[in-house]
Amino acid sequence: MSRQSNRTTDSKKMNSELFTLTYGALVTQLCKDYENDEEVNKQLDKMGYNIGVRLIEDFLARSSIGRCQDFRETADVIAKVAFKMYLGVTPSVTNWSPAGDEFSLILENNPLVDFVELPDNHSTLVYSNLLCGVLRGALEMVQMAVDVKFSQDTLRGDNVTEIRMKFIKRIEENLPAGE
Amino acid sequence: MSRQSNRTTDSKKMNSELFTLTYGALVTQLCKDYENDEEVNKQLDKMGYNIGVRLIEDFLARSSIGRCQDFRETADVIAKVAFKMYLGVTPSVTNWSPAGDEFSLILENNPLVDFVELPDNHSTLVYSNLLCGVLRGALEMVQMAVDVKFSQDTLRGDNVTEIRMKFIKRIEENLPAGE
Repeated sequence: MSRQSNRTTDSKKMNSELFTLTYGALVTQLCKDYENDEEVNKQLDKMGYNIGVRLIEDFLARSSIGRCQDFRETADVIAKVAFKMYLGVTPSVTNWSPAGDEFSLILENNPLVDFVELPDNHSTLVYSNLLCGVLRGALEMVQMAVDVKFSQDTLRGDNVTEIRMKFIKRIEENLPAGE
Repeated sequence: MSRQSNRTTDSKKMNSELFTLTYGALVTQLCKDYENDEEVNKQLDKMGYNIGVRLIEDFLARSSIGRCQDFRETADVIAKVAFKMYLGVTPSVTNWSPAGDEFSLILENNPLVDFVELPDNHSTLVYSNLLCGVLRGALEMVQMAVDVKFSQDTLRGDNVTEIRMKFIKRIEENLPAGE
């Protein structure tokens, strides 16, 4: 499916439940399609990546946010602007590494899992893994290579959901040959 | 995935773009999984139905709407409350049949297709068919059997998207034997 060029940025605010249930249908379908949780997790990450590389343009247009000064500013924009915009929740930013290259997003309330309980035979499924891919894809488009993974998940009995983000490197923009 | 009993109805308003792109990932996955558009359309309707039978409870809790007096009231509630709530748009209700048992929902703007163009080899794909299933499933849970289908679609070059809804029958609630 390719992108229409005449898309507008008018805002359509919606409740999250239809999205939540549709996401559940997607995960259920992938669980049918792939042999094990590990493959489903990979597929969710890959789908998320493809979504992220497209969503970033919408995000930049809608938020009017320019280049972030540092990874701390990036963290705040992700939590306070991006999550709020596309998921309707604002995670807290915590657990910074001393070097300032890693932080956690803590979601008290993950809208993707509102209707969900993991069946016993999917104990290694990272149900919301699409989000990691979205973050990775979107950040890559603004020249940041970042490692993103869930380190806690309420679906597995943790009290909160925690997404751990680690800065890897700034991606050099391609310069024309000879420069 | 089963439903948690402790779910709350606090509202999480979000922009539609992440949902739109995630829905695109679902349709793309189904196009890989099934042999032809007809099968994908069926699967989308079936998934939508399963979503609808669960979404109705959330809808009734959130909207505080009671039993509709007639199909005209049902039509208005679907357009002005349900679509607004879960998709952020309000279709118009038109093209009533003389008997009052059929109407159309006209969407000037279908959020599901914001980023989409149908590839040539999917000319019979009813891309947004999930919505028909959702409506069918949700209405069945309030004792209304309804036929729902797309009769126009901007993805196929029509000027608007039109969902045609036909009342079939009221479903009798099961009474205990002997009454």
